[in-house]
Amino acid sequence: MPGGGSGGGEGDNLSMASDLPFLGPREATELQEFSRKPKRNVSRTLGELLQRVGDSTGDNNPASHQVFEVDHDPVYQPAAYMPFVLSFHNLTYSIKVRRKIIPSCFWRTVAHGSSGNVMEDKSGVKVLLNNISGEAREGEIMAVLGASGSGKSTLIDALADRISSESLKGIITLNGEILESKLLKVISAYVMQDDLLFPMLTVEETLMFSAEFRLPRTMSRSRKKARVQALIDQLGLRTAAKTVIGDEGHRGVSGGERRRVSIGTDIIHDPIMLFLDEPTSGLDSTSAYMVVKVLQRIAQSGSIVIMSIHQPSYRILSLLDRLIILSRGQTVFSGSPVTLPEFFAEYGYPIPANEDRTEFSLDYIRELEGTPGGTKSLVDFNKSWQMKNPRISHTNGTRRSLKDAISASISMGKLVSGSSNVDSNLSSSVPIFANPFWIEVLVIAKRSFTNSKRAPELFGVRFGAVLVTGIILATIFWKLDNTPKGVQERLGFFAFAMSTTFYTCAEAIPVFLLQRYIFVRETSYNAYRRSSYVVSHALMSIPSLLVLSLAFAVITYWSVGLAGGTSGFLFFLIFIFASFWAGSSFVTFLSGVIFNVMMAYTVVVAILAYFVLFSGFFITRDRIPNYWIWFHYLSLVKYPFQGVLQNEFDDPSKCFVRGIQVFDSSPLRAVPDEIKLKLLKSMSKTLGMNITSSTCLTTGSDILKQSGVTDIDKWSCLWITVALGFLFRILFYFALLIGSKNKRK
Amino acid sequence: MPGGGSGGGEGDNLSMASDLPFLGPREATELQEFSRKPKRNVSRTLGELLQRVGDSTGDNNPASHQVFEVDHDPVYQPAAYMPFVLSFHNLTYSIKVRRKIIPSCFWRTVAHGSSGNVMEDKSGVKVLLNNISGEAREGEIMAVLGASGSGKSTLIDALADRISSESLKGIITLNGEILESKLLKVISAYVMQDDLLFPMLTVEETLMFSAEFRLPRTMSRSRKKARVQALIDQLGLRTAAKTVIGDEGHRGVSGGERRRVSIGTDIIHDPIMLFLDEPTSGLDSTSAYMVVKVLQRIAQSGSIVIMSIHQPSYRILSLLDRLIILSRGQTVFSGSPVTLPEFFAEYGYPIPANEDRTEFSLDYIRELEGTPGGTKSLVDFNKSWQMKNPRISHTNGTRRSLKDAISASISMGKLVSGSSNVDSNLSSSVPIFANPFWIEVLVIAKRSFTNSKRAPELFGVRFGAVLVTGIILATIFWKLDNTPKGVQERLGFFAFAMSTTFYTCAEAIPVFLLQRYIFVRETSYNAYRRSSYVVSHALMSIPSLLVLSLAFAVITYWSVGLAGGTSGFLFFLIFIFASFWAGSSFVTFLSGVIFNVMMAYTVVVAILAYFVLFSGFFITRDRIPNYWIWFHYLSLVKYPFQGVLQNEFDDPSKCFVRGIQVFDSSPLRAVPDEIKLKLLKSMSKTLGMNITSSTCLTTGSDILKQSGVTDIDKWSCLWITVALGFLFRILFYFALLIGSKNKRK
Repeated sequence: MPGGGSGGGEGDNLSMASDLPFLGPREATELQEFSRKPKRNVSRTLGELLQRVGDSTGDNNPASHQVFEVDHDPVYQPAAYMPFVLSFHNLTYSIKVRRKIIPSCFWRTVAHGSSGNVMEDKSGVKVLLNNISGEAREGEIMAVLGASGSGKSTLIDALADRISSESLKGIITLNGEILESKLLKVISAYVMQDDLLFPMLTVEETLMFSAEFRLPRTMSRSRKKARVQALIDQLGLRTAAKTVIGDEGHRGVSGGERRRVSIGTDIIHDPIMLFLDEPTSGLDSTSAYMVVKVLQRIAQSGSIVIMSIHQPSYRILSLLDRLIILSRGQTVFSGSPVTLPEFFAEYGYPIPANEDRTEFSLDYIRELEGTPGGTKSLVDFNKSWQMKNPRISHTNGTRRSLKDAISASISMGKLVSGSSNVDSNLSSSVPIFANPFWIEVLVIAKRSFTNSKRAPELFGVRFGAVLVTGIILATIFWKLDNTPKGVQERLGFFAFAMSTTFYTCAEAIPVFLLQRYIFVRETSYNAYRRSSYVVSHALMSIPSLLVLSLAFAVITYWSVGLAGGTSGFLFFLIFIFASFWAGSSFVTFLSGVIFNVMMAYTVVVAILAYFVLFSGFFITRDRIPNYWIWFHYLSLVKYPFQGVLQNEFDDPSKCFVRGIQVFDSSPLRAVPDEIKLKLLKSMSKTLGMNITSSTCLTTGSDILKQSGVTDIDKWSCLWITVALGFLFRILFYFALLIGSKNKRK
Repeated sequence: MPGGGSGGGEGDNLSMASDLPFLGPREATELQEFSRKPKRNVSRTLGELLQRVGDSTGDNNPASHQVFEVDHDPVYQPAAYMPFVLSFHNLTYSIKVRRKIIPSCFWRTVAHGSSGNVMEDKSGVKVLLNNISGEAREGEIMAVLGASGSGKSTLIDALADRISSESLKGIITLNGEILESKLLKVISAYVMQDDLLFPMLTVEETLMFSAEFRLPRTMSRSRKKARVQALIDQLGLRTAAKTVIGDEGHRGVSGGERRRVSIGTDIIHDPIMLFLDEPTSGLDSTSAYMVVKVLQRIAQSGSIVIMSIHQPSYRILSLLDRLIILSRGQTVFSGSPVTLPEFFAEYGYPIPANEDRTEFSLDYIRELEGTPGGTKSLVDFNKSWQMKNPRISHTNGTRRSLKDAISASISMGKLVSGSSNVDSNLSSSVPIFANPFWIEVLVIAKRSFTNSKRAPELFGVRFGAVLVTGIILATIFWKLDNTPKGVQERLGFFAFAMSTTFYTCAEAIPVFLLQRYIFVRETSYNAYRRSSYVVSHALMSIPSLLVLSLAFAVITYWSVGLAGGTSGFLFFLIFIFASFWAGSSFVTFLSGVIFNVMMAYTVVVAILAYFVLFSGFFITRDRIPNYWIWFHYLSLVKYPFQGVLQNEFDDPSKCFVRGIQVFDSSPLRAVPDEIKLKLLKSMSKTLGMNITSSTCLTTGSDILKQSGVTDIDKWSCLWITVALGFLFRILFYFALLIGSKNKRK
C-alpha cells in the first residue's frame, strides 16, 4: 500500500477534516465550553458529584443536560473515605523472540502497540518490563511516557490484566489486596487505540447501545438514558450528540470527538479503574488536550486513570498527576511532573529554563540510549531518588478492605453495572453479562440494522451487482430452447448463476471486517456473548439475502425460460437463497480468519474459483480423478448447481431430443431432414423398436445422468447447502473464540 | 476500512516502530550527531558552503563523507550578493463548491491537504485565500501555521505554482520579477506530504536514482555520486545510507528518516526555492525537529524554504525565521516568532509567561473562530500592526536582475541541474528533461528491477498462484481422451486456463498502484517523460510474465495431453504469454484509472467474469444474441481462448468421434456394441456410404465449427491479443496524462 506506515497519519486526519468545513467552529465552541465553564467553579462534595453521574438521576432529571463540571484544583481532595490505590511491585515481563513465519499483512495484531526496541539478550529473550514499581491513586491521572518500544503499552497491558499471569512476574494490588481477574474486568475498563465504532450511528445512539449492552437489565431504560446524557456532558459531546460518527464516505464527528465517544463506550458503567493506550495519538493538540481534560474529570469523579502517552504537550502535562517514564522496559523517572526539573538538576543535567520539560527529558533519555552505557546511570539515580523522596506513604492502618471500598464506591454511584449487594465473595456476585442471550441478539441486530439503514449504499452496491449480472445473464441466455445446444447452455447458465451468488457475497468483506473489530473490542469486556453475536449476525443477513435472491430469481427465471412453473420458480428461488446463505456464511467465516481486506478478498476469489472448477460443470463427477473427488464434495458450488439442474431436468414429460434431433450433436446434423427420417427408420428396424420423428430420445433424466448430478437428490442438495451455511457460521464462532483472546502470553 | 481516518496514524507509526527494535539507538545516534556537531561551529563563507554541496566536489573528495554543517546563528548573514526574495501580494483564491457525486473512495485526491473549514458565502463560493501578502527570503524558513482548513496548504500551492493562474488572483515575484511557470519548475522543488518511495531501495540508491533522473546527463556519474553523498550528510542520513526504505513487510528506516529521504529526492538538484506541505506531519517530536533542522541547513545553503506546519513544538519554533498564521484564508499574524508575544500583548490578549506561544495563539484563534465576529478584529489588528512594524524594507536600488541572481547562484554551486549558461531568455535555456528518452526508460527499469529483486515474495505470490492453479488443472484434467466428453473437457480446460492468466494479473494491483503514486510525484517535477515510464513499465513486466507463462504451459501441456507436439506446445506457450501480457496491460490500465486498491480489485474481478461469460465458452458465438455480440468481440478472453482451441483442434488427421463413438453423446450410448455396429451398417446403407467402426465421423474442424470459433484464425487471434495489450498500455499512458495534472483549478 502506498504512503507507508508513518506518513499517512496526520495527512488522513487533515484530509478528513477538510471534508468537514464546519468542524472548526464546532470544535472552537467546545473549546469555549471547556475554557469557560471552570469559571463557575462551584465546589461540590464528592458524593454530590457521584450522585450526578450514576445513581440518583431521576427519570426526568432536567439537570442531566447540564455540563458536569468539577473543581479545577489539581490537588484532588478525597472525601472522608479511603481512596482506591493501585500498587504494583517489581513487574517483570519478558518474551522469547521467534522469527515470524506468517507475513505481517496476514494477521493483524490488534493494537498491542509496540514491543520492539527493548533489550534482547543472547538467548533471544526480550525483557519488555524490567522491575517496574509504582502506585496510582483515585482522583489522579498516571501517565506512562517513553519512546516507541520503551514498554509503555506493555505496562498498561500488565496493569489491565492483559498479560497472562504465568508470564508476568510481580505483584499488583488494589488497596492492598490482590485483584482477581474477573473482578478487575468488572470494575475497570480498557480503552484501545483504535476508534472502532459503527460509522452511521449518532454519538448518542452509540453510547445508548453501549449502555444497553453493559448496564444491568434491572436498570430502567430511562435511567440508562439519563446515564448516557450525563456521560455526553462529561465527555463534552453535547454539541455532537446527534451527529453520526462518520467514515471516509460520510461526514461525521471530528477525530477528537470520535476518540471521546470511544472512551465513552468503555466507561458507560463508570469503572473504578480506567486504562488507556495512547488516547491522544493521532489527534491535534487541541483535541488531545480536550481528551485528557475529560480523563481528568473522570479521575476526579472517583476513578484511577492510567494512560500511556508518547509525548504530552505543555498543557496536557499540567493535567497529569503522576508520570512514569520508561526506557527499554526500565523506569527512568517516576513522580509528579512538577518534580521533573528537580530530578534532572540533582542528576546533574538540569533542564534549561525555556525548554519544554518532557521534550527535553525524553530527548535526553533517547540520547542516553544511544550511548554504550545506556540509561543505566539514570535508572540507578532514579532508584536512589525514589528512596530519598518517598511518596506520602499510604497509611496502612486505617485502610478499609477492598470489598468495603468497592461497596462504598457503588453506593456513591460508581460502577453502574455492578450489583449493589457486594457479599463476601465479591467476584461471584457480579454477573458476567448484563443481559440474557436473546436480549443481546436483539440489541446487536437492532444496532446493526440502524447502522446499515443509514448507509444504504453498502447494500446498494451488492444489489446493483446482482441486478446487473442477472440482467446480463437473462439477456445473453434469453429464452433458451430445448435442443442439445440449449441444454448445454442451460448448464452454463446454472454454473455461472450459482457462482455469482458466491462472488457477490465477497463484496461484503470490508463490512464484516469492521464489525469483527468492534466485536473483538466489545467481547473483550464481556459486553455480550460471542454466541449472540454470531446468531445476531446470521439473523441480520437473512432479510437482505432474501431481497437479493428474489431479485435475481425474478430477473432470470422467466427470461431464460427455466422449467417447472410456479413450483419450479419457488425451488429455484430457494436454491438461490440457500447459496447466498452458504456464500455469506463462508465469506463471514473467512473474514473471521483473515483480517486483511485485500488478502481476504484474494483468498475468497481464489477458493471460489476452485469451487466452481470442481463443482461438476467443467468436468462431471464421474470423470473427476479419484484423488480429487473429496474436493468435489467440498465444493460449495456443487450442491446448489446440482440442485437447480435436477429442478430443471426432472420433469419426465419433457423431451430434449426428439426424433431427428438425435443427429444434432452428431456429424450427421448437416444431412437433409428426409434422409434423417430414413436413418431413423433403418435404426428402428435394427433396434427392433419404432422411432418416429416424435419419439423422445433424451429426457431430462438422461441429461442428469450424463451430467453426473444424480448422486444426491435435489432436496438433499438443498439441506446440504443450508447446513454448510450453518457449519461456516459455527466455524466463524470458533474463529472468533480463538481469534479474540486479548491477553498476551 | 476499519479504524477510521484519524485514529490509525500514530498507531501505525508505533506498530511499525515495534518491528524495528534497533530504531531507537540509531535515532539516538543521529540525535547526537545533531546536537553535538554544532559545537564545532567553524565559521565558513557562503561560497565555501555552496562549493561543498554542488559543484567543486572532486571525484575522490574524502571530505564528502563528513557531515556538512553550517553556523547555528539564526540571524543569517548573506554574503556580499543580494539574496533572493520571494514576494507575494494580495493572493486571493476561491472555488465554487459543488456537491460531490463520485464517492470519495473511488478517486484518491493526491495530497492536496485541505480545503474545508473556510468561509463559504451564499452562492456556494468558498474563499480559500483572502488577500494574503508576505515575503520569504533566502536563508530563512517561512512557516505557514493554522488549523486544518485554514488555507495553509492552499497558500503553499499558490506560491509553488500549483494553482492555475486563471483562478489565482494576486502577484508573486522573485526579486521583483514575475516568475514564469517553467522557470519556477526548474529552480524550485515541492515536497508532498506522502513519502512515496520504493520500499526495497536503500537510502543511497533512492537518492542516486533521483540524481540520475534530475541531474544533467553532462554531469559525470562520479560527480552525481558526490552530490548524493553530500546530500546524505546534509540530511543527517549517514548512518541509514545503506538501509532500505522498508514497508509493512520489511524493516527499514524510521519515519523521520523516510521523510528526510523524501525531501532529499526532491532537492537533489539543490533548488533555490523549496516548498513543503506539512513536512513534520506524522512524525514524533524528535524526528520532526530533525527534519526542520535539515530544512534550516538547506535554507542556509542559499535557498528560500517555505513550509506549512500544523503546530510547531517549542524547539521547532526556534528554527523558524518567519511565521504566517492563517485563519479561514486570512492572515491573522505575520512576522518573526519572537514578536508573537508583543503582537498579542498589543492586541490586548497577552500570552501568559509559562504558556507555549504558538499553542496559546492557535487556541485563541480557534476560540475566536467560534465567536460570531470571528477573527475579524485580529485580522484588522494585524493589518495595522504590519503598517506600524514594516519589515526592514528590501533596498530596491541595488537589486540585481533575477537572471543575474540565478546565474550567481548557479556559479556558486546551486541548481545542479540547471545549465550554466543563463542567457537572456532564462526559461528556454533550461532543458525540461535531464535525460533522453531511452536513458529514462533504462533508469526506470533498473530501479524497478532493483526494487522487485529485493522483494521476491511479490513475484513469489503470483508464481505460486500460477503454479497451484496449473497443478490443479493438470491433475483434474489429467490425460484427457479424445471422446466427445473429452472434447467438452478440453473446452472447459481452455476456458479456465485462459481466465486464470487474467485473474493472476489482478494480484499485482497494489504494486501497480504504489508505482503509480511515485510516478505522479516524479513526473510532477519532470523527472522523466510519461512515455518512458509507460514503456519501461511494459518492458519490465515481460521477463516475469515469460516465467509465469513457461511454468503454466510446462505444467499443463503434457499432463492434460494437448495436441500438436513441439509446435503445438510453443503455440500454447505463446498464447499463454500473450494473454498474460494483455491481462497485465488491462490491469495496469485499470490501476491507472481507479486508485483505490479494493475498488480496483473488485472491478477487475467483475469485468473479467463478464469477459469469461462472453468469451464463447458458456454460449457459442452463433448463439449470442445480436445485441450482445459487441461484448463478445470486446472480451479479452475470447481471442486467446479461440486461439488455443484452434491450435488444439486444427490437426486434420486427428479424429474425435470414430465409428460407434458417434452414439456416445446420444441416447443410444447404453446399447451393446454389437448392436451399435449393426446400427452403423444400416445407417451406411441409408446414407449410401460405408461407415465402419474405424470411420472418422468428427474431426477437429467439426468441433471448431460447433464451438463457433472459426470467425478469426489463430494467428489473427494472437495478434489481436498482443495488440489489445498494447492498446491498454496506450490507454494507460493517457490515463496517466489526464490523471496526473497537479494544478488546482
